[in-house]
Amino acid sequence: MNGELKQILENVKNGTISVKDAILKIKKKPFEDIDFAKIDFHRKFRKGTNEVIYGEGKTAEQIIAIIKTMKSNGQDNILITRLQKEKKDIVSKKFRIKYFKDAKIGIIGKISKSNGIGKIVVATGGTSDIPVAEEAAITAEFFGNEVVRLYDVGVAGLHRLLANIDDIMSASVIITIAGMEGALASVIGGLADCPVIAVPTSVGYGASFQGLSALLSMLNSCAAGVSVVNIDNGFGAGYLANMINHMEIKK
Amino acid sequence: MNGELKQILENVKNGTISVKDAILKIKKKPFEDIDFAKIDFHRKFRKGTNEVIYGEGKTAEQIIAIIKTMKSNGQDNILITRLQKEKKDIVSKKFRIKYFKDAKIGIIGKISKSNGIGKIVVATGGTSDIPVAEEAAITAEFFGNEVVRLYDVGVAGLHRLLANIDDIMSASVIITIAGMEGALASVIGGLADCPVIAVPTSVGYGASFQGLSALLSMLNSCAAGVSVVNIDNGFGAGYLANMINHMEIKK
Amino acid sequence: MNGELKQILENVKNGTISVKDAILKIKKKPFEDIDFAKIDFHRKFRKGTNEVIYGEGKTAEQIIAIIKTMKSNGQDNILITRLQKEKKDIVSKKFRIKYFKDAKIGIIGKISKSNGIGKIVVATGGTSDIPVAEEAAITAEFFGNEVVRLYDVGVAGLHRLLANIDDIMSASVIITIAGMEGALASVIGGLADCPVIAVPTSVGYGASFQGLSALLSMLNSCAAGVSVVNIDNGFGAGYLANMINHMEIKK
Amino acid sequence: MNGELKQILENVKNGTISVKDAILKIKKKPFEDIDFAKIDFHRKFRKGTNEVIYGEGKTAEQIIAIIKTMKSNGQDNILITRLQKEKKDIVSKKFRIKYFKDAKIGIIGKISKSNGIGKIVVATGGTSDIPVAEEAAITAEFFGNEVVRLYDVGVAGLHRLLANIDDIMSASVIITIAGMEGALASVIGGLADCPVIAVPTSVGYGASFQGLSALLSMLNSCAAGVSVVNIDNGFGAGYLANMINHMEIKK
Amino acid sequence: MNGELKQILENVKNGTISVKDAILKIKKKPFEDIDFAKIDFHRKFRKGTNEVIYGEGKTAEQIIAIIKTMKSNGQDNILITRLQKEKKDIVSKKFRIKYFKDAKIGIIGKISKSNGIGKIVVATGGTSDIPVAEEAAITAEFFGNEVVRLYDVGVAGLHRLLANIDDIMSASVIITIAGMEGALASVIGGLADCPVIAVPTSVGYGASFQGLSALLSMLNSCAAGVSVVNIDNGFGAGYLANMINHMEIKK
Amino acid sequence: MNGELKQILENVKNGTISVKDAILKIKKKPFEDIDFAKIDFHRKFRKGTNEVIYGEGKTAEQIIAIIKTMKSNGQDNILITRLQKEKKDIVSKKFRIKYFKDAKIGIIGKISKSNGIGKIVVATGGTSDIPVAEEAAITAEFFGNEVVRLYDVGVAGLHRLLANIDDIMSASVIITIAGMEGALASVIGGLADCPVIAVPTSVGYGASFQGLSALLSMLNSCAAGVSVVNIDNGFGAGYLANMINHMEIKK
Amino acid sequence: MNGELKQILENVKNGTISVKDAILKIKKKPFEDIDFAKIDFHRKFRKGTNEVIYGEGKTAEQIIAIIKTMKSNGQDNILITRLQKEKKDIVSKKFRIKYFKDAKIGIIGKISKSNGIGKIVVATGGTSDIPVAEEAAITAEFFGNEVVRLYDVGVAGLHRLLANIDDIMSASVIITIAGMEGALASVIGGLADCPVIAVPTSVGYGASFQGLSALLSMLNSCAAGVSVVNIDNGFGAGYLANMINHMEIKK
Amino acid sequence: MNGELKQILENVKNGTISVKDAILKIKKKPFEDIDFAKIDFHRKFRKGTNEVIYGEGKTAEQIIAIIKTMKSNGQDNILITRLQKEKKDIVSKKFRIKYFKDAKIGIIGKISKSNGIGKIVVATGGTSDIPVAEEAAITAEFFGNEVVRLYDVGVAGLHRLLANIDDIMSASVIITIAGMEGALASVIGGLADCPVIAVPTSVGYGASFQGLSALLSMLNSCAAGVSVVNIDNGFGAGYLANMINHMEIKK
Repeated sequence: MNGELKQILENVKNGTISVKDAILKIKKKPFEDIDFAKIDFHRKFRKGTNEVIYGEGKTAEQIIAIIKTMKSNGQDNILITRLQKEKKDIVSKKFRIKYFKDAKIGIIGKISKSNGIGKIVVATGGTSDIPVAEEAAITAEFFGNEVVRLYDVGVAGLHRLLANIDDIMSASVIITIAGMEGALASVIGGLADCPVIAVPTSVGYGASFQGLSALLSMLNSCAAGVSVVNIDNGFGAGYLANMINHMEIKK
Repeated sequence: MNGELKQILENVKNGTISVKDAILKIKKKPFEDIDFAKIDFHRKFRKGTNEVIYGEGKTAEQIIAIIKTMKSNGQDNILITRLQKEKKDIVSKKFRIKYFKDAKIGIIGKISKSNGIGKIVVATGGTSDIPVAEEAAITAEFFGNEVVRLYDVGVAGLHRLLANIDDIMSASVIITIAGMEGALASVIGGLADCPVIAVPTSVGYGASFQGLSALLSMLNSCAAGVSVVNIDNGFGAGYLANMINHMEIKK
Repeated sequence: MNGELKQILENVKNGTISVKDAILKIKKKPFEDIDFAKIDFHRKFRKGTNEVIYGEGKTAEQIIAIIKTMKSNGQDNILITRLQKEKKDIVSKKFRIKYFKDAKIGIIGKISKSNGIGKIVVATGGTSDIPVAEEAAITAEFFGNEVVRLYDVGVAGLHRLLANIDDIMSASVIITIAGMEGALASVIGGLADCPVIAVPTSVGYGASFQGLSALLSMLNSCAAGVSVVNIDNGFGAGYLANMINHMEIKK
Repeated sequence: MNGELKQILENVKNGTISVKDAILKIKKKPFEDIDFAKIDFHRKFRKGTNEVIYGEGKTAEQIIAIIKTMKSNGQDNILITRLQKEKKDIVSKKFRIKYFKDAKIGIIGKISKSNGIGKIVVATGGTSDIPVAEEAAITAEFFGNEVVRLYDVGVAGLHRLLANIDDIMSASVIITIAGMEGALASVIGGLADCPVIAVPTSVGYGASFQGLSALLSMLNSCAAGVSVVNIDNGFGAGYLANMINHMEIKK
Repeated sequence: MNGELKQILENVKNGTISVKDAILKIKKKPFEDIDFAKIDFHRKFRKGTNEVIYGEGKTAEQIIAIIKTMKSNGQDNILITRLQKEKKDIVSKKFRIKYFKDAKIGIIGKISKSNGIGKIVVATGGTSDIPVAEEAAITAEFFGNEVVRLYDVGVAGLHRLLANIDDIMSASVIITIAGMEGALASVIGGLADCPVIAVPTSVGYGASFQGLSALLSMLNSCAAGVSVVNIDNGFGAGYLANMINHMEIKK
Repeated sequence: MNGELKQILENVKNGTISVKDAILKIKKKPFEDIDFAKIDFHRKFRKGTNEVIYGEGKTAEQIIAIIKTMKSNGQDNILITRLQKEKKDIVSKKFRIKYFKDAKIGIIGKISKSNGIGKIVVATGGTSDIPVAEEAAITAEFFGNEVVRLYDVGVAGLHRLLANIDDIMSASVIITIAGMEGALASVIGGLADCPVIAVPTSVGYGASFQGLSALLSMLNSCAAGVSVVNIDNGFGAGYLANMINHMEIKK
Repeated sequence: MNGELKQILENVKNGTISVKDAILKIKKKPFEDIDFAKIDFHRKFRKGTNEVIYGEGKTAEQIIAIIKTMKSNGQDNILITRLQKEKKDIVSKKFRIKYFKDAKIGIIGKISKSNGIGKIVVATGGTSDIPVAEEAAITAEFFGNEVVRLYDVGVAGLHRLLANIDDIMSASVIITIAGMEGALASVIGGLADCPVIAVPTSVGYGASFQGLSALLSMLNSCAAGVSVVNIDNGFGAGYLANMINHMEIKK
Repeated sequence: MNGELKQILENVKNGTISVKDAILKIKKKPFEDIDFAKIDFHRKFRKGTNEVIYGEGKTAEQIIAIIKTMKSNGQDNILITRLQKEKKDIVSKKFRIKYFKDAKIGIIGKISKSNGIGKIVVATGGTSDIPVAEEAAITAEFFGNEVVRLYDVGVAGLHRLLANIDDIMSASVIITIAGMEGALASVIGGLADCPVIAVPTSVGYGASFQGLSALLSMLNSCAAGVSVVNIDNGFGAGYLANMINHMEIKK
């Protein structure tokens, strides 16, 4: 850095740049020393060819424009989350799109071939949690994971859950999705010996307070290996599960 | 639970005691007035024969005074809750008192003979919940119930809970006590076919928010037959369990 | 267990099963030792011939499918809660259904004959609490209980409540339903000598915060024998009241 | 105002005042037009000879200094709230002070002769609420009111409350003080036909959340004529009750 | 009471009544000893000829039925709060009704002649608070009070408030109504020497949290003489103000 | 910001206008009274020359009336916030109005020439925050500030933010606008050496709790120089930024 | 605030110091590494010449080590916040330190000469808010600002506040500090025409909820130009006020 | 993580140990019952070979008893969390224990050799977060992971964080630990392409509300791949990071 600073000061001395411009140049120094190219380079490889558009709050037109730019940059496989059916109908006039109604997900291009460490189990407490579960499951599949769905295995009917103990015990990652009391995460966390990602849902009424009850419950899980994402954040859980299920490939 | 009153009346009916003596027994000064608290003797007939003193916030001297008045009115079996050891030591100089350290309960007189419909199971999620559990258990025993204790059977170690499935399946009433995520109530509620009383505890840290997490979790239980009392309210649960476990006697 | 474990190890030794399969078999051991048959057997008798469908969030088509399966399994008496009138109209084209508008409950088949320990009193603070109260009352009646309705007996008009003191004092179980300040549970809990189930309702405005005020109030009830279910959970209260009112039959 | 503004502008013109000073003078105009003397004059008569010191967070030395200034201004009757015993001991070396231990109130000088419209009833739900009640009662007495104390008349023992119905029915103002579920305000508000001031207390545990439960409960009271002050604010209730009980004197 | 109890026991003895009936009779004793007639008698005089119907959650048909019953009992002056215009239109086909659109109040019969101690001031922080203010003002007028309206005098424009200092200083009772920061109650409470009733409103956005901010602010008012009613509860404030403004008449 | 008043006084001083004309200019009816809101013309001199109408909760007719009064008092430049398009359409029939759709702002008259200390940067975390950002930006521009927009530079994509480090480091004031985790304020606060105004937005779902998460996050910012306004309060931020960016003119 | 850097560059420009010496001054090891905290010397140029140590949670020994490193890098003026007296006593054995007991601030070296745009007013609602106020005031003085203290001018005693209207109207920046209802920020925000920084304090009891009430109140302020910092964050307010009061120097 | 079990089975397969010895190793009394807590030895095979004791709320004597039982079952490497120094001193009289003061962790036996996929980075926002960070770091090291510590790299000093970008970019798992605004998780989550575990801490004051602010902030993180554990739960984060960093071994 010394050389550069010296140059600035020489320039100030001989009047080539103003004092004001010199101040700005010096203030920016700590950040110029960082190799930002590295970040962007990395990013390119990390994100790979599969890209994601968060559809919430974007118009169909905005989504189409983003897709165009992506495709012109060589990204052919695109996952669009929180895509209302009405918007999907407009987008599908421009691009061939596969739509998953429950998950509110649209996919352009191909779903990656499954190549993870093992299987990802997606379990829900009730049938009302399925839309969030499908968002998680489709996301995980898109990025190349085999997904096992265990729906409506809430803890109030323990035998249903235990009937699937083979899947739980042999999973690579488990996503547990539940509203109301959210106890599913603790029970599965205690049974499994793999990372468990808990997704509270806003399903319920009264003292569920739009998912707060399930959220707190999951954060307080006594089972080790459990972590939590935002209420109804199926995509986040699916994406993280994919990351974990592809750990071995990284090194 | 109206046993004592019923007995008096039966005795009147079959001539074992005189009307005059019966009156005396029934109505000894219903509103004995001592300056810090109005003791309610009529309550005896509405709520049963064994009396309870809530020790929290009362001095040893106040407690002694209340016991004296009770005893002079013929109430010999008294349960004192939330009784700090220091106060117990003072009270025990005046009255023979049996003290339960974990439960912080003192008992003067006799524990009723077990005569309920069935057994009351008291289950806790962890070892830290035991003080609340003992408050519930001793209370239930005092009023004449057989109590089965299942401690440290939290849902994160499900096989420990399931190892006790016989007790759970044959219980008359179950009290489930848990802090943190409070999932125990839902799991037991789903297994058992008897009333389940859930007691959230203030055990935990961080997002347990002094029992709020367990409280909400239990209120949201998807299992039918579950109801909830205040955080750490072991006495309330034990008292209610006793009521339910003596239902048949009523008719 | 030893024999079985020995067998697995022998099989590993002689190559009959792979190491991987052996791991899974061993991990599942603690759960295989539990007699799950017992759970399911019990369940069959517990649930009896009366079944419940939680209608919220299910389409009319889904409800019809569930009913069909139930009926083909010999369950002829079915209670459907939170059944919107629109869905009822569709369901009623397939099955003869009795609809209770206030309670939003539909019943297929017969209501059980009343055979409980005593009467269940359902009391509300105001007229706006009636839908929740009817959900509780119809549920209790469906399972075979005599129900006494005391509506609009809120504590701000105490004489109305006290005018019904005979019903309160002779009840087997009392369900108290109130929004706003929820004081009804404490007052009735103090009068009655039977279990009191409190249901906070989301009725109210401002600082009632959708039932939070009544919920906290009821949890803090100073009267012994009171427990609480979720906000607006009339079904849960009715179901639990039925359980308690049939205690004697159990033994 | 025109005259004055004209004068300012003339002064600016002839240089008597600077532009800067003129700006300040003009900005203050809207407030100068108000007769502040009127406020202070009024204040003098309103506050009369009885003065109040809020003792919390003040040292004994600061309290002594304030008393001195008050006395030198002719105020001989002084109420000191939230006065810890230790501070009282120091203050009492300088001034003759009457100390009320439960209320944590010290009084210098005389308590006014009772001259209100009627009697003020101070009612509490339990014995633990008495310190707040005494703060209210002594405050009311200091300002010249007759106070009737009804302690430990909580709604869980309704007959105790009703035994005092004459006092409640003939009161001029009622202060109801309760922690836990706070139902007392609604019940009394429904019985009485006078203003009811509700004071939630921080007494309780668990879901009482330091008085929040009682506060919400009281704000939601269905009884007309009820209003609420801050948690544990006995002084505020006593002061307001005094105001209302002296309404007739005003005209 | 002795005589009566003796009679019951004699009857038990000679078999005139059953033991079961005797138990109920004895349990009810504490409540029979109270002179309930007194409550109802009092109530009649208290409520006088002016009656109130809380219109929220009632159908036009229900309201009409209530009015009919009232009128047949001689109550000719009726205030109906929270009366939506649509319902008013239906009710007005049966009864002559005066409708106040802002206040959503309908009045049948006459507004009482003003005969209070003094004037009631109704002050609001902003123009959006006016509907709540009008509910308070019309209620107060209906019961016979002169009302002075000071609207949009929020503390952010203090000179507007101070311009009305004469009204504030000479009021008998002041109702302060504000959303957002709710500071108006403290400022007026500090200026006035009469009871101040604070009404938080749900007006605002963001961190006003539907009136919570104003509610807490008002409860924390440092000015003595301020009490608070529920969020948006204009009727409650008007009713209480009327009570206070008619104190002198009581004695 | 006292520019206009200062100018009048300077003119008086140097004789450009007469004292009489100055009086007229300064004091045109300070409390013009129209029935729904008191407009405060004196404020003009305390707060500056451009006026603002808060459109929320006002009808188009009310807005038109306020504009008329303002214009007749010589205020030609008026900013109307939270102006729905439907109301704008009605207002625009009477007055020429420039409408900013995203910001929901209408402007009558001219936007002031930029004359501040430096540039105001308006940065958002995401694209959904843009409506709030535009409210801030247009407000700042209206009062005479150059605004640099940095939209969608959330901390999850740090390189996008750092790509704009020149703007951040040379800004005079920065407004950071973000929902969800609100981390943008801390990051920018750490980079910049000028005042940072943080605006939490209600954008998000689940545990964002309508902006509460971002609000708390911003209040806890570890970076010095950061302060916070209400959730979604773009106008407040823009107004305050304008104040700060015109500090030097004051003296 | 870039004063020092600007000075160095000016000196380079006019030849007072050599380029080499300038480099040394500017770049002395930007990341001096001591094991518990990385002190940031580069920050000096971004944030100004006077340095701050946040004393909370640091031992006296850690503080001494940080001071040493700072001094060896030529930073002679150091402000230490949240410095407990016990730690101060230890630090003062090594360094000459000026200690402000109320503010819990220690200063090593000199307080800057006042050279801001105008005066900073620090106003509090009560006497209990003074510690926070002094933290703000001393901080502002340390960085070179004239501070006017207006303590105990809460809105419940409006005349005390208005008696100081000259200071409020002529201030450059105002810091308003209040607990309980926090109304002071709105009232002052409405009076003043300069930026107002609001600091909620945790002073109060009951429904003040440790500053939450004041915080919400201040965030909802209807007065434009008001922004808020964290509860009890006197330093943050003083630092921001200094920034604003030195705006003119920047350009 | 099934390493040990797998090894035994491999040994059985290749004849290194006899079936009998294998049985002994696998099944030593699965439910050793000591009176205060049921230790679960079967867990060893489900969760791995190193055992953990949660020290909070256990006496030194209880901890010693648990250690004894564990050691007699062949578990020699034991991690004890939340172990107060006083208890450690007692335990260390019986067992050789390595104590980590900051982390409040004691270790008996050996720390596993690092054999994970890559490195685990533990990053904190401030120095006060270090105790939680050390709990996470020591836990991860105990289970066999290489840990890189990046302390005090909070987002308010972004260049400090960016100076460590190589560590962040090459990590296998990152644990981000922060109180106050918790923004660190989002910033790191945006930079890294590995799973990020966020731990909110209770560090802070005022509106941090004991970690709630950081918790909400982290749950709302816009960066994909971020999940959250309970406030201050360093152990949970370290354990989960270990799980993820050993994924490859599983298959």
